[in-house]
Parts: sequence; structure tokens; C-alpha cells
Amino acid sequence: MEGSHEHQHARPDTTRKDDHLRRLRRIEGQLRGLQRMVSEDVYCIDVLTQVSAATKALQSFSLDLLEEHMAGCVVEAARTGDDEAQAKVREAADAIARLVKS
Amino acid sequence: MEGSHEHQHARPDTTRKDDHLRRLRRIEGQLRGLQRMVSEDVYCIDVLTQVSAATKALQSFSLDLLEEHMAGCVVEAARTGDDEAQAKVREAADAIARLVKS
Amino acid sequence: MEGSHEHQHARPDTTRKDDHLRRLRRIEGQLRGLQRMVSEDVYCIDVLTQVSAATKALQSFSLDLLEEHMAGCVVEAARTGDDEAQAKVREAADAIARLVKS
Amino acid sequence: MEGSHEHQHARPDTTRKDDHLRRLRRIEGQLRGLQRMVSEDVYCIDVLTQVSAATKALQSFSLDLLEEHMAGCVVEAARTGDDEAQAKVREAADAIARLVKS
Repeated sequence: MEGSHEHQHARPDTTRKDDHLRRLRRIEGQLRGLQRMVSEDVYCIDVLTQVSAATKALQSFSLDLLEEHMAGCVVEAARTGDDEAQAKVREAADAIARLVKS
Repeated sequence: MEGSHEHQHARPDTTRKDDHLRRLRRIEGQLRGLQRMVSEDVYCIDVLTQVSAATKALQSFSLDLLEEHMAGCVVEAARTGDDEAQAKVREAADAIARLVKS
Repeated sequence: MEGSHEHQHARPDTTRKDDHLRRLRRIEGQLRGLQRMVSEDVYCIDVLTQVSAATKALQSFSLDLLEEHMAGCVVEAARTGDDEAQAKVREAADAIARLVKS
Repeated sequence: MEGSHEHQHARPDTTRKDDHLRRLRRIEGQLRGLQRMVSEDVYCIDVLTQVSAATKALQSFSLDLLEEHMAGCVVEAARTGDDEAQAKVREAADAIARLVKS
């Protein structure tokens, strides 16, 4: 299934895709761990420490995915033409802004 | 089960605890949604948008839990004595630093 | 001159105040350095590296000032009464949220 | 004076350069304002509010400069060759990581 964009985009190779899925599953596991901590009334500061760890893992996943996108789609668009290049750069810049502000 | 700290700490009332658990379950669901997007090769920028949404939800959870902790444990420590107050403030300051840097 | 709040608040001792001023002067100097880099068309990535350094210095200044505030005004309010304590905690929580989101 | 990198890089046009300098001067002014607030013992929370404003201004400056760099140097490198493209993307990714973590 394509992204919400109807254009073709470079499909990540299977190894990278497996790595992405493994990382997301691990963060999902951290969320379940947080629920156990809250259920068992674990001290707030310890819960906050685990939340920061999950947030960092999400952040690092985003940074890697963003680099992959720039190395693939943005470079490809740059070679296609100026309009495509500027549109892709604009789109990546918005994603970076969301990442910085989240 | 107590936190890693052997002292008593104000137990969150059930409504708040249920709310924490509901929010964490929702973020866990967002992580499963992200795995589906990656499995289906959804466009990276759309995946990054969802990651930012999950990060913001985690951040907002942390801020609420931190406020609860300050209103409970830090205020309680302040009324117990100077040493307890300063130790609790130091501990909260470290948690805030981790939150800011994650 | 009091802050925009008409109540008394613990005045920082002179050493801490001098340290705050020294740190802000240093960050101000970093801003002037950045202007020199831009005037001399220094490579963007090097400018960005210096901007991150200035941002980190501002962040660390905020975290220290916040801890000082919690150890002073929040603890003092906690000993004054519940309403004062909750108002101070709410105010600090908003400041932490701004810090996290900036 | 070139950046620390001995290669040519697209020089920003004068209007953009003037805009960068204007924004940095403004943030420098915010830093002087912060020093006045601290000298006059202004309430910490008000100082922290101004620090967050200065941090946001720095962040927004970084995001714009980063977009400019991607639209210029990264696109240019993409059209030069694979090695140049990947090196520029790697470099931009590191800058984004510093920005996200500051």
C-alpha cells in the first residue's frame, strides 16, 4: 500500500524494514512495561525515567528513518528536477520541524 | 509494590491511575499502528508524522505525571524538612532534565 | 523590581545571581559569534553546530533556574498552605511544559 | 572565509543573509533583556518564559537554515554523484540529530 502520496517511493529493503519493525516492537514492549509500573504504583520518578527511555528510542527511530528518506526520496527527487527537489525538501523540513517540536 | 525507593509515596487515586493506564494503552496502540504502516511500506513522511504524534502523547503523559509528583511527594517532603525537600527537588530536577533532553 | 507577580519571592543570593549573569553574557557572546559566521558565509552545518551549542547553554541555564525556583518558592509555598502550594506547582508545571516544548 | 570544509558551497543571497543576521541580532537582544531581568530580581517564572522564547527563536532559525542547506548543498551534491550525496545526507542527519537533542 502506497503512502498517502500517490507517487512511487523507494521501498526500504527487507533488512532495514525488519530492523524498523524490531525497534517499534521493542518500544511497544516498553509501553507495556510502563503500564505494569503504573498498575503496581511504582514511584513516579522511576516511571518518568522509563518514559524518557521510550521517548529517546522513538526519537532515534525517527532520525534514522528521516536519514533513509533523505538518502532515497530526496536525492531521487533532486535528480528528477528542481520542482520535485524543492517539494521534497519542503516536506522533509516540515517533518524535521515536527520532530524538533515533539 | 513500592518504587525503587523504600519510602512511602502518595499513591495516585484510582481515577488518575485509570487515566494513566488508558493513555499508555493508547500510545501502545499507536506503536502497533506504526508497525502496520512500516509493514505496508507507507510513505516515510507519513510514518514520521505518526511517530511525532506518539512522542507528543508520551511527553504530555510525562508532564502530567511530573506535576502530580510535585503536588504530592515534593510538597509532602517540603513539609517534612529541609533535607527531604532538597532531596525531592533535586530528584525532580533530574527527571525534568531527562524529559527536556529526550 | 518585583516580577510581574506582586508577591515577595526569595531573592537569589549574589553569587548565584552573578553566575546567572555570567552565563547569559556568555550565550550573548555566542550569538555575536553566530552573526560573524553568517557574515563570513561560514558553511551552514558549522553555523548549525554553534546554534545547537547556544541552545544547549540556554537549556541548561533554564534547568538550573527552575531547580532554584522549586527549592525556594515552591518549597516555601508548600509550607504556607495547600492553595499556595498547588498554585506554585501549577505555575512550575507550565514553565516545565514550555521548556520541554521549546 | 569558507566554512571548515574546503569545498565550495552555495553562498546565501544577500536578502536571506540579511534576514539571518537580523534574526540573530534580535535573539542577542533577548539575551540582554534576560540579563536585565536577572539583575532586577524579576520572578524566575517570568525569566524562564523569556528563555523559552529565545530558545524557540533559535530553533526556528536553525530549521530555516537547515532547509536552505538541504535545498542548496544537499540537492547540488545529489546531482554531482552518489558518494557526494550520501556524505551530504549523513552530515545533514547529524545536524538534525544535534538540533533534536538540543
